[in-house]
Amino acid sequence: MILAASVLEGDRLALARLLTQIENDTPEGRAALGELFPHTGQAHLIGVTGAPGTGKSSLVNRLARYYRQPGEDQAPRRVGVVAVDPSSPFSGGAILGDRVRMRDLAGDPGIFIRSMASRGSLGGLARTTAGVVQALDAAGFELIMIETVGAGQAEVDIARLAHTTLVIEAPGLGDDIQAIKAGILEIADILVVNKADRPGAKSTERALRGMLQLAHPIRREFQHHGLVSQLSRGGDSQPPAESSQDDEELLWIPPILQTVATEDTGIPELAQEIERHYEYLQATGDWQRREETRLKAELEQLLQEALLSRWWASMTQSRYQAVLQNLVEREISPWEAVSTLLDGGES
Amino acid sequence: MILAASVLEGDRLALARLLTQIENDTPEGRAALGELFPHTGQAHLIGVTGAPGTGKSSLVNRLARYYRQPGEDQAPRRVGVVAVDPSSPFSGGAILGDRVRMRDLAGDPGIFIRSMASRGSLGGLARTTAGVVQALDAAGFELIMIETVGAGQAEVDIARLAHTTLVIEAPGLGDDIQAIKAGILEIADILVVNKADRPGAKSTERALRGMLQLAHPIRREFQHHGLVSQLSRGGDSQPPAESSQDDEELLWIPPILQTVATEDTGIPELAQEIERHYEYLQATGDWQRREETRLKAELEQLLQEALLSRWWASMTQSRYQAVLQNLVEREISPWEAVSTLLDGGES
Repeated sequence: MILAASVLEGDRLALARLLTQIENDTPEGRAALGELFPHTGQAHLIGVTGAPGTGKSSLVNRLARYYRQPGEDQAPRRVGVVAVDPSSPFSGGAILGDRVRMRDLAGDPGIFIRSMASRGSLGGLARTTAGVVQALDAAGFELIMIETVGAGQAEVDIARLAHTTLVIEAPGLGDDIQAIKAGILEIADILVVNKADRPGAKSTERALRGMLQLAHPIRREFQHHGLVSQLSRGGDSQPPAESSQDDEELLWIPPILQTVATEDTGIPELAQEIERHYEYLQATGDWQRREETRLKAELEQLLQEALLSRWWASMTQSRYQAVLQNLVEREISPWEAVSTLLDGGES
Repeated sequence: MILAASVLEGDRLALARLLTQIENDTPEGRAALGELFPHTGQAHLIGVTGAPGTGKSSLVNRLARYYRQPGEDQAPRRVGVVAVDPSSPFSGGAILGDRVRMRDLAGDPGIFIRSMASRGSLGGLARTTAGVVQALDAAGFELIMIETVGAGQAEVDIARLAHTTLVIEAPGLGDDIQAIKAGILEIADILVVNKADRPGAKSTERALRGMLQLAHPIRREFQHHGLVSQLSRGGDSQPPAESSQDDEELLWIPPILQTVATEDTGIPELAQEIERHYEYLQATGDWQRREETRLKAELEQLLQEALLSRWWASMTQSRYQAVLQNLVEREISPWEAVSTLLDGGES
């Protein structure tokens, strides 16, 4: 198929067209994804989530630029950005106060940015995001950042698409942010206190560390070895110790980093931690396990949709409307309506 | 069935037990809901959504107390609160700075508070919330407030359970809140600028009004009649004009109110607007239309689950694992896996 072949050859226009097909869930899009699927599984998927106001879009922006211009003797890497966050500037908002604008990244063939409409059903969005990520993966983008607002289960589910999940926090965002973190901490591989030049950054980090200990009490002992406190000092540029590959590391301790994205402070250190997590995933077999979990979730989502659409094809509109009317008039309950429809409509 | 009968008689312990059954999706819970279903459809369902930090929990708290102690010649009304918001103090957090604690409401038989676990699948949460709301409705709670974090599609979907949706905003929550509102404005029946004693309340209200005009340009002309500006002045206690039932009102203009929940400022006015929206829904037939939309969504969710569980019952675990393994090894694509499973497993 021409579309899939063009995407594999690096044709950006073809890729953009394919992503639109995927978003519209067309047969062409499905067919192309099917062809591209054997070429997926190479990219490192990085979920970036956090409440509005934490500056995660700026962080994604700066990380993307860092990967393109890593300096020293490191090779630039190809970066995809998928913004599921409705508040993301990648989806049309503005990064106020951030001096790196999207146009600094536009025109670079090594970066591809796609924002997802957040309308429509949620399962639909998760499925579409999975497809978009697969297309970028097949097109050779090595790092794919998936940005979501980390406030609800939906976003958590979408973040589960990733191999490495960054949870972004910021000082002084109000008291009830704390409670959200309790749930979101469970999915964090790396915690980032962004806007760390603001008052309260230290206490935000302290609160996160406290919650981390509550969430993962077994990890507390490792902090006595000075590992977490070393890693959490995002401000200085010392690299992680070489000993990070030793036995202790077979348990991943979510590090806490401080960044000021708008000034590029802590960005190289964050990239280093992402790389260290990649190595951890590979060394422990977690990479493979996360792949399986992800593909299983996607399969079940697709199965559900296929079952429903097959069932719809077997049902007449008038029969459905009649049952719905009974339901609305409260003559039958929702479960009774389901039984009536399934036992009457399937045969 | 004893459980359903006890709930109808006002037995709180039976109600609490039923809600647990609903959350665990037990056959007993389904059966009881089926029995209770003809008794539902009476309650006014009020969705309350907004970003973390807007103080929506305090607002729900104060509204609940107001409905219990409305003063003057109004009768107290029975209130249910369903907190889907993981950051809600009703779900275990703390309302810092709010002098009305939950214990002021606890012990009052005219109020029932239930917090929902936000773990598990999202569809599951939406279905469970629908069931919990139905149980409270059948148990005779006249106003049921459903509190969600308004940042993602999930929360929007859950807010759609309601007849009347309140979107809560607060001054100075950061720039990227603005973008979220664009999406969430579409579901708002009433906009509330809470924490209106903070700097920036006026400009937040102005921004909301601007976005409202963008979202619903047709409504602009009504503002020339002074209607919106009159309604939006939540601070003074003048009741809505009697003319609110005239022809102009057949188009609902989301009013913008200012409140300071922790000081009870604007709470009676908000309750008045909620009542006015109730009358609007009844007068226009929108009440019935929203009921139908809601029940239809619930039916489709249940259908999907039933189809999936019937299909699972027809599938052997080993066959499923074999297909999943092919998928993980990228020998087949997700859509090919679905075809294989459906065409091999259904017969």
